[in-house]
Amino acid sequence: MNGVKAAAMRKNSEKGGFYCKGWIQNVWKFCKEDINRVIFSLKVGFAVLLVSLLILIRSPYEVFGTNIIWSILTVAIMFEYTVGSTFNRGFNRALGSILAGILAVIIGQVALCNGRVAEPIIIGISIFLIGALTSFMKQWPSLVPYEYGFRVILFTFCLIIVSGYRMGNPVRTAMDRLYSIAIGGFVAVLVNVLIFPIWAGEQLHKELVNSFDSVADSLEECVKKYLEDDGSDNLEFSKTVMDQFPDEPAYRRCKATLNSSAKLESLANSAKWEPPHGRFCHFFYPWSGYVKVGAVLRYCAYEVMALHGVLHSEIQVFLSYFFSLQIST
Amino acid sequence: MNGVKAAAMRKNSEKGGFYCKGWIQNVWKFCKEDINRVIFSLKVGFAVLLVSLLILIRSPYEVFGTNIIWSILTVAIMFEYTVGSTFNRGFNRALGSILAGILAVIIGQVALCNGRVAEPIIIGISIFLIGALTSFMKQWPSLVPYEYGFRVILFTFCLIIVSGYRMGNPVRTAMDRLYSIAIGGFVAVLVNVLIFPIWAGEQLHKELVNSFDSVADSLEECVKKYLEDDGSDNLEFSKTVMDQFPDEPAYRRCKATLNSSAKLESLANSAKWEPPHGRFCHFFYPWSGYVKVGAVLRYCAYEVMALHGVLHSEIQVFLSYFFSLQIST
Repeated sequence: MNGVKAAAMRKNSEKGGFYCKGWIQNVWKFCKEDINRVIFSLKVGFAVLLVSLLILIRSPYEVFGTNIIWSILTVAIMFEYTVGSTFNRGFNRALGSILAGILAVIIGQVALCNGRVAEPIIIGISIFLIGALTSFMKQWPSLVPYEYGFRVILFTFCLIIVSGYRMGNPVRTAMDRLYSIAIGGFVAVLVNVLIFPIWAGEQLHKELVNSFDSVADSLEECVKKYLEDDGSDNLEFSKTVMDQFPDEPAYRRCKATLNSSAKLESLANSAKWEPPHGRFCHFFYPWSGYVKVGAVLRYCAYEVMALHGVLHSEIQVFLSYFFSLQIST
Repeated sequence: MNGVKAAAMRKNSEKGGFYCKGWIQNVWKFCKEDINRVIFSLKVGFAVLLVSLLILIRSPYEVFGTNIIWSILTVAIMFEYTVGSTFNRGFNRALGSILAGILAVIIGQVALCNGRVAEPIIIGISIFLIGALTSFMKQWPSLVPYEYGFRVILFTFCLIIVSGYRMGNPVRTAMDRLYSIAIGGFVAVLVNVLIFPIWAGEQLHKELVNSFDSVADSLEECVKKYLEDDGSDNLEFSKTVMDQFPDEPAYRRCKATLNSSAKLESLANSAKWEPPHGRFCHFFYPWSGYVKVGAVLRYCAYEVMALHGVLHSEIQVFLSYFFSLQIST
């Protein structure tokens, strides 16, 4: 009995070992697929460490005080995969913080002038209004890309005005917060740009090239399949349509292209923030052109998909018939 | 000369008035299109106001202290459009904060036991490791939806361990932060669920119904156009393909469906978090089915787009030829 148990345990542990090995292999494959993933992770670690040193080492801590904690938050929230989106997020955060700071200081001073009774009422109403207004504005189609900025305005405004009310000096609170955010943003941008920068422009270019490749491949595959097909598997139609479609290489390759609209747009949006770099070495590079080409390419992909659908259709023109038609006309 | 200037100025001010009126009309139309937008904005204002009252009114402030500021941040960051995504974000924030809190307390204690010299080194290394690890994990395909959770882990960990190092008591810092986040989360969820809730499930259902409608409409339009068309506008081909395509009703209506993949998926993802409600009144409602139906519908839309492309193709089968072919076969 014990022998059986031991064998089972050994089997289990072997299974565990196998899973573990498979898991490590998966991770390894994931890293090898795109080395930028690892670089990005290490960069984040380094940026957070850098900004934490400001607190861990005694002398900068004595200069900046506990408010420096906000810079850690800024790095963790601002650090994005590409240079462009880091700039974009940084701009949102900076402008949002500054706007919120100005608003909070003005409203805080107005409330202060109106006496102890009216002060909390004015502050409460202003918080409600800012909350409602920013939430409304961030839904406006042309302002959607700045969603994060509106969020920043909301919480920065609340934080400054509320802590200003309790601690007495909204200007001081605002300034403290602003410079620690500035330090965090500075570190995030510096690390992101100087250490193995990942450019959104490059990614956009690569993405579009891949899309072209995949559409071409799937078109080729469709033609190959059409020429191979003898129209004998019509019976499997209903099953094929639902189950086999997504597994076919033509569909799989094309799928990423078909759903690439949002990705291309966000990459182009980020790329606009990037300074000239690599082969894209002039200002105002027409990044939006990539989105347009992507849209036209997607249109081609729709046609390929339709072609792919025709291959699976129940009613097929037999090759022989097709040729006879060609000869007769 | 003055008269001309005055007239120009009057014209300008009229123009300004016209713009202003147009702008107000736009906003009004935007609100009327979907009244939920206004409700959402007012809800955010109300939630932020509620949580600010905890600081503005003296007695709760005396109980909770300045740490309550974190609850404002939580509301501003957690409050999402639909109930499901608020739950989802709340879950991410809660789990992330708890995990980060536990990690920070353990590592903080270990560092504390190793003496004054080793402490900052251990803390620094742990910050680097956590930063790199969370950034790596959030890129893993199956963990992408929890991206926000990993961000929360990172900054909560850094905040607790660093302020614990400077203020001496990581457990106390962690607990303070956790309960103020809990209060913020509680207020956000309560306001979102109890006051005119906007359910992701309903939105998903509506979205899919709209997709069906738009595909059907554009199919109808294509057929209508085909029957109307006499094939005489072939000369305009190259211009038509690039410029007129996006403006055609068939294309415009279908476009939203074609790019709906990400939206449907995120709505289904949010809907999974929602309790039974309205007409979806049982647990484990098969929300992922909507995504599958959406994918099949998108496939139909590809065919419609191809049909639409055929209408614009340079080589057209004339109707007369088509009918003669039909009669002869």
